[in-house]
Amino acid sequence: MNIRKRRNATARSLQPVAGNGLLDRRALLGQGIIFASAVSTGVSGSLTGAAAEPLPVDPWSLAIGTTIPPYGQPAKYEKHVVRTLTNPNNEPRTSNARTPHHLLNGTITPNGLHFVVSRTGFPDIDPDKHRLVIHGLVKQPLVFTLETLARYPMESRICFVECGGNSAPLFSKDPIQANVQAIHGLVSCAQWTGVKLSTLLDETGIDARAKWFLAEGADAPSMNRSIPLAKALDDAMIALYQNGERLNPSQGYPMRLLLPGYEGNMNVKWLHRIKLIEAPVMAINETMQYTMRVAEPKAWQFYFPQEVKSFITHPSPGLTLKGTGFYEISGLAYSGNSRIAKVMVSADGGKSYAPAALDAPVLSKSLTRFRIPWRWDGQPAILQSRAWDEAGNVQPTRAELLAVRGEPKTNPPVTAFPMGHMNAITSWAIDPKGEAKNVYV
Amino acid sequence: MNIRKRRNATARSLQPVAGNGLLDRRALLGQGIIFASAVSTGVSGSLTGAAAEPLPVDPWSLAIGTTIPPYGQPAKYEKHVVRTLTNPNNEPRTSNARTPHHLLNGTITPNGLHFVVSRTGFPDIDPDKHRLVIHGLVKQPLVFTLETLARYPMESRICFVECGGNSAPLFSKDPIQANVQAIHGLVSCAQWTGVKLSTLLDETGIDARAKWFLAEGADAPSMNRSIPLAKALDDAMIALYQNGERLNPSQGYPMRLLLPGYEGNMNVKWLHRIKLIEAPVMAINETMQYTMRVAEPKAWQFYFPQEVKSFITHPSPGLTLKGTGFYEISGLAYSGNSRIAKVMVSADGGKSYAPAALDAPVLSKSLTRFRIPWRWDGQPAILQSRAWDEAGNVQPTRAELLAVRGEPKTNPPVTAFPMGHMNAITSWAIDPKGEAKNVYV
Repeated sequence: MNIRKRRNATARSLQPVAGNGLLDRRALLGQGIIFASAVSTGVSGSLTGAAAEPLPVDPWSLAIGTTIPPYGQPAKYEKHVVRTLTNPNNEPRTSNARTPHHLLNGTITPNGLHFVVSRTGFPDIDPDKHRLVIHGLVKQPLVFTLETLARYPMESRICFVECGGNSAPLFSKDPIQANVQAIHGLVSCAQWTGVKLSTLLDETGIDARAKWFLAEGADAPSMNRSIPLAKALDDAMIALYQNGERLNPSQGYPMRLLLPGYEGNMNVKWLHRIKLIEAPVMAINETMQYTMRVAEPKAWQFYFPQEVKSFITHPSPGLTLKGTGFYEISGLAYSGNSRIAKVMVSADGGKSYAPAALDAPVLSKSLTRFRIPWRWDGQPAILQSRAWDEAGNVQPTRAELLAVRGEPKTNPPVTAFPMGHMNAITSWAIDPKGEAKNVYV
Repeated sequence: MNIRKRRNATARSLQPVAGNGLLDRRALLGQGIIFASAVSTGVSGSLTGAAAEPLPVDPWSLAIGTTIPPYGQPAKYEKHVVRTLTNPNNEPRTSNARTPHHLLNGTITPNGLHFVVSRTGFPDIDPDKHRLVIHGLVKQPLVFTLETLARYPMESRICFVECGGNSAPLFSKDPIQANVQAIHGLVSCAQWTGVKLSTLLDETGIDARAKWFLAEGADAPSMNRSIPLAKALDDAMIALYQNGERLNPSQGYPMRLLLPGYEGNMNVKWLHRIKLIEAPVMAINETMQYTMRVAEPKAWQFYFPQEVKSFITHPSPGLTLKGTGFYEISGLAYSGNSRIAKVMVSADGGKSYAPAALDAPVLSKSLTRFRIPWRWDGQPAILQSRAWDEAGNVQPTRAELLAVRGEPKTNPPVTAFPMGHMNAITSWAIDPKGEAKNVYV
């Protein structure tokens, strides 16, 4: 960038682009702008030239290091960066493990931190003995081992998976006081690699009567769902690898169904059976568990895609701001229908919005990280993000969503279903102490 | 795809597009093409309709599962998917840990499997006490804590890191018998998130005399390198997160320098000092360790980017083909200069080539997965891949590379330097038993 452009950009960065201190997403943030506040707020202390050299010698610079292990683990100082568990003793009920988005950055979720919803922990499947059968309304039923699947053409794609019940706490009549992990922790993102289901159906052939398929897991509850055949012929995948390595056991090792953009439970883990059928089997997971309440007493069955959504991860409850001045507001946006088109951010509870920058590449049905600079003046602020997708959908306000889905009557605990598919705007109120909390605006 | 297009594609898939059975990268592989060979080779056995239902009930489908852990680990059946270590007892010499690319798929490397080159294991750095100082030819020297860095604008990018000594075994006079992990295991890829170095230099200001900067680690050997200032103002990053979570301790926790596309050692881990300078400091890592032999007695110093390169991971030594018929040939391509433009694959030792498909998104300075279908007839074959980048560079044959760099005179052990920057074409010879071995063509 030449000097004139740099000066123009610097000038631009001095002017807020929306209320309460939002700055241009392309603003150059140096040239003393951050530092001017940094000196007084501790953002960065200055050293005199003399003090800067020699550096103090830290004890770890004087010691032999630790042996590089065959399989590396996170640093011991990161022991708090874990999933929260709803069923740590594996009692006979559903377990949720939630991704700590407030402690992560980027869009890839490490395999150890991918969210889990499971009805009975994870099964101990011997990959050499596991089989995938495709049968029903096919011309030739077939059984596949891991070894035979390895010979088929594969593809890799980065894509999110989200539980249909994610964000259900926002259905609570009064705003619950919880962090982003507790509210939005049932969505994660990985690079998945495997064989397209359409490739295997080319092998089996398809009977003309087939319109749906049943996917069933090898876990003890035999998790099963009916899925339109059109999805099988579009982008459904038998996923074998997650972020490069074999699936994590909690994610369906040795294979899962991946239905990009569809609600999490349909992405059947520990997949061992696909049966082509004429009509849905009306499994409990589609007639009761994963129906969606509209205005009572109505409910929608067979509602699949996760809608366009976004939430701010930084700052968020528990990440207290330390003094006024510059911060980056950042978060995650995604849509089960397409790519994210834009994310608008507000610091004044929705009175004014400014466009956030999106980290490249912006991929369809993947998490997208958005970022925008913000100068906090120490006064109360309400931070919101709102996402649009390329299919033309816009994330609703909570009021807009409840107008369709019905007003909530209870406070927590809120049962996820029939209260699923909550994709309304999240609002974090920042108080003068710099603390964030969940509010309804 | 409509029926006519599907038939045309099927017809296309019947015709090899290059010698020894390479098929069109867009070929539809179903319609009985795979299956026709599958029945006789065990690619997929058929079940009668009756046999396919009911399924056998596996023991893991009858048991309560294992508790979901706070931080998940790979399945117990994957214990062989680890890095190989050259210094497992952490003796006082360099440690290499190599990524098992033959057991992975996709392009993201899990953090536990990212390659490592380290002079003394990894230091045990307390992140709250760690400091990054930027000083030297700046207007205002500054010191940054992790907390202050967290307030700056960040960005995420997927990018590979490769040791300048990766693939050095191909300098051996005679081809060594080793697998892809041993030959090419010093390259990995992750999504890195952090603060651009240019943002921090906007804060410190830059003295007009500065032309280079020194980057220094807090490890006991104080790993250091001189780097042109232009890279700092381009895409250099102070990386804090790796695939979403904080850096792995072996990758520089709590912060490393990321110089996209530049040789691995310059991406200084455990970074604690950046000093702007007029000329290189002539550190041992630039005058001896990381020089590059041209024709003796010449050597190049300060040669930074990793050149365009590719290698086949599947099949490769140790992954024995089980019977004739269809396989997917797949591998990794990358360039430190730009995006990959195309990858050509040969099954006849370079006599004929066909274009491979590239998994999307194809990103600059990132690993790119290429794939092409292949029908093996059981006869000897020699598999090669050759990559082109968008900067106009082409991966050389081994003969072309040695014409510039000098003919090797010794067999292993080959010292990586001055033999670094080996980016020649790799050749895997497949014998009639289906075994692959490293050969020179």
